[in-house]
Amino acid sequence: MSQQTLIIDCHGHYTTAPKALETWRSRQVAALNDPANRPRVAELVISDDELRESIETNQLRLMRERGSDLTIFSPRASFMAHHIGDFEVSSTWAAICNELCYRVSQLFPDHFIPAAMLPQSPGVDPATCIPELERCVRDYGNVGINLNPDPSGGHWTSPPLSDRAWYPIYEKMVEHNIPAMIHVSTSCNSCFHTTGAHYLNADTTAFMQCLTSDLFKDFPTLKFIIPHGGGAVPYHWGRFRGLAQELKKPLLKDHLLNNIFFDTCVYHQPGIDLLTKVIPVDNILFASEMIGAVRGIDPETGHYFDDTKRYIEASTIVVGDDRHKIYEGNARRVFPRLDAALKARGR
Amino acid sequence: MSQQTLIIDCHGHYTTAPKALETWRSRQVAALNDPANRPRVAELVISDDELRESIETNQLRLMRERGSDLTIFSPRASFMAHHIGDFEVSSTWAAICNELCYRVSQLFPDHFIPAAMLPQSPGVDPATCIPELERCVRDYGNVGINLNPDPSGGHWTSPPLSDRAWYPIYEKMVEHNIPAMIHVSTSCNSCFHTTGAHYLNADTTAFMQCLTSDLFKDFPTLKFIIPHGGGAVPYHWGRFRGLAQELKKPLLKDHLLNNIFFDTCVYHQPGIDLLTKVIPVDNILFASEMIGAVRGIDPETGHYFDDTKRYIEASTIVVGDDRHKIYEGNARRVFPRLDAALKARGR
Repeated sequence: MSQQTLIIDCHGHYTTAPKALETWRSRQVAALNDPANRPRVAELVISDDELRESIETNQLRLMRERGSDLTIFSPRASFMAHHIGDFEVSSTWAAICNELCYRVSQLFPDHFIPAAMLPQSPGVDPATCIPELERCVRDYGNVGINLNPDPSGGHWTSPPLSDRAWYPIYEKMVEHNIPAMIHVSTSCNSCFHTTGAHYLNADTTAFMQCLTSDLFKDFPTLKFIIPHGGGAVPYHWGRFRGLAQELKKPLLKDHLLNNIFFDTCVYHQPGIDLLTKVIPVDNILFASEMIGAVRGIDPETGHYFDDTKRYIEASTIVVGDDRHKIYEGNARRVFPRLDAALKARGR
Repeated sequence: MSQQTLIIDCHGHYTTAPKALETWRSRQVAALNDPANRPRVAELVISDDELRESIETNQLRLMRERGSDLTIFSPRASFMAHHIGDFEVSSTWAAICNELCYRVSQLFPDHFIPAAMLPQSPGVDPATCIPELERCVRDYGNVGINLNPDPSGGHWTSPPLSDRAWYPIYEKMVEHNIPAMIHVSTSCNSCFHTTGAHYLNADTTAFMQCLTSDLFKDFPTLKFIIPHGGGAVPYHWGRFRGLAQELKKPLLKDHLLNNIFFDTCVYHQPGIDLLTKVIPVDNILFASEMIGAVRGIDPETGHYFDDTKRYIEASTIVVGDDRHKIYEGNARRVFPRLDAALKARGR
């Protein structure tokens, strides 16, 4: 591995935002049926010092301890909660959250680059998200988006990702050369624990929606990152290869792997080993999703569960140039605007 | 491994039933809103010869080719379709399907032993399933049941498995000493492909429902088999260990592994290797779910994807007495009525 390899974490959320953000959101939610009493955006005041502290004592501290350089940073996934309120509520909330991630990226330009949440709302045309998407790319330098395949929060009332209803988003993604991480938010269905079931189910579901469709024939350059190591997909890679064959689809490498990528948010060594053994190295992007769902120390190793760099470093499967691809090369390829931003800074 | 090891496949469905069964069901479904025109049960006539042929040319042929001895045999999972019609529709259908599996077990007593589907119906009290459950145990010698955590077929409108609504079923399971395989049926939600997303999601979901609850404190001897290798669970075992820790639950081995077992329906070698590396051998039961979702030949190996015995045989992780446990010992322990039935036949 080159000495110069940048360690790029493609999956970080602003889970440690100052308390004022949550307080504002609580007021917004409390006034859902009482628009006149909704808090104004201007009532949320968070200083640069507060932002700095929330990052320096949390994400940046851990990035330094663990040795990662740059995080693609988006609003807290579980707080997107697209199921709450209507489009206007989601729109205001998305704008606030995206601005905060942008400000973090301006305060720490060497360490954070933003990805946007969208103002999705159940039953609302995804095309309504385009103004916020374009604002984030144009004004904030966002290099990707998070796309929620289930804005209902666990009721799965939207059409599959292969449906033409989503195409306006994909057209803009292709136009602006940005990928989407397919990432749900909080489950409001009591069957699904948010981070233990809903997230992983959504990953598997999204992959299968792509597998059964010809989406990437319509959008040959569209790129999706499926987080959390791809849900159940790599573990059941034989099943998915077999299902594709039953459905008379091409081999998965031709059918999906020019467009779908998996992150390394798998919190134990055997899982990372399976992922890296089964999925081609060109389709794996380093990520930790820290500080996220699993914040504790693994009593079996003495290290943080979500310190995924340790698993890559300990891997006997990912060696040499393959590490460079997972840490940096693939991220530059999948996020071309990230690559351009880095090059503009001489990196 | 002892020469005498029985190879017990704990997960087989009657996917090859004579066409007359599907025809009858189609008539039942067509007359959902016209009860007077529903077909009578007596109109379904399938001879023993037809049953024999459907088994001998399919499951039994493959069992002989692959070298498995005995299959725990239940009605076709995707055909349970509990979301169709009301309780009476489900009840009639379950009775028919369970009787066919019983007849197969009588025709091939050395090779098949039945497990029951239940006449679940969305929004209907699970306790209504008890008469069919008891009939199958008492009259048909069933050794287990399949319990559908989502009778709505992908809308997830039932409470989690930890909810007291399910307790009447659990009380009967404990009383009769039978385990449940947690197995959904067809998805009627266009987001979820049945065998590529809904099945795996349900496995993960069920595990997490147990993890977040104290169900097994109330039922210390209750036993669940989570099929399809546990969905996403073993691949994300670190995540689940970490989530249990965040939730102040005991270690998973103490919290869940006296009660939860995984089958080996994982259709490639790296997946089986991950499963057997991560999950204690006492919690793994051999299974193939053939002839099921993935019926083709893996071009990478030249063998059937669902010939899971090959992966166990090729394993360098599962050796010696551990193979005996996975093939036979664990199944006898988890299905005590199977063990008793085998012993009664001198096996």
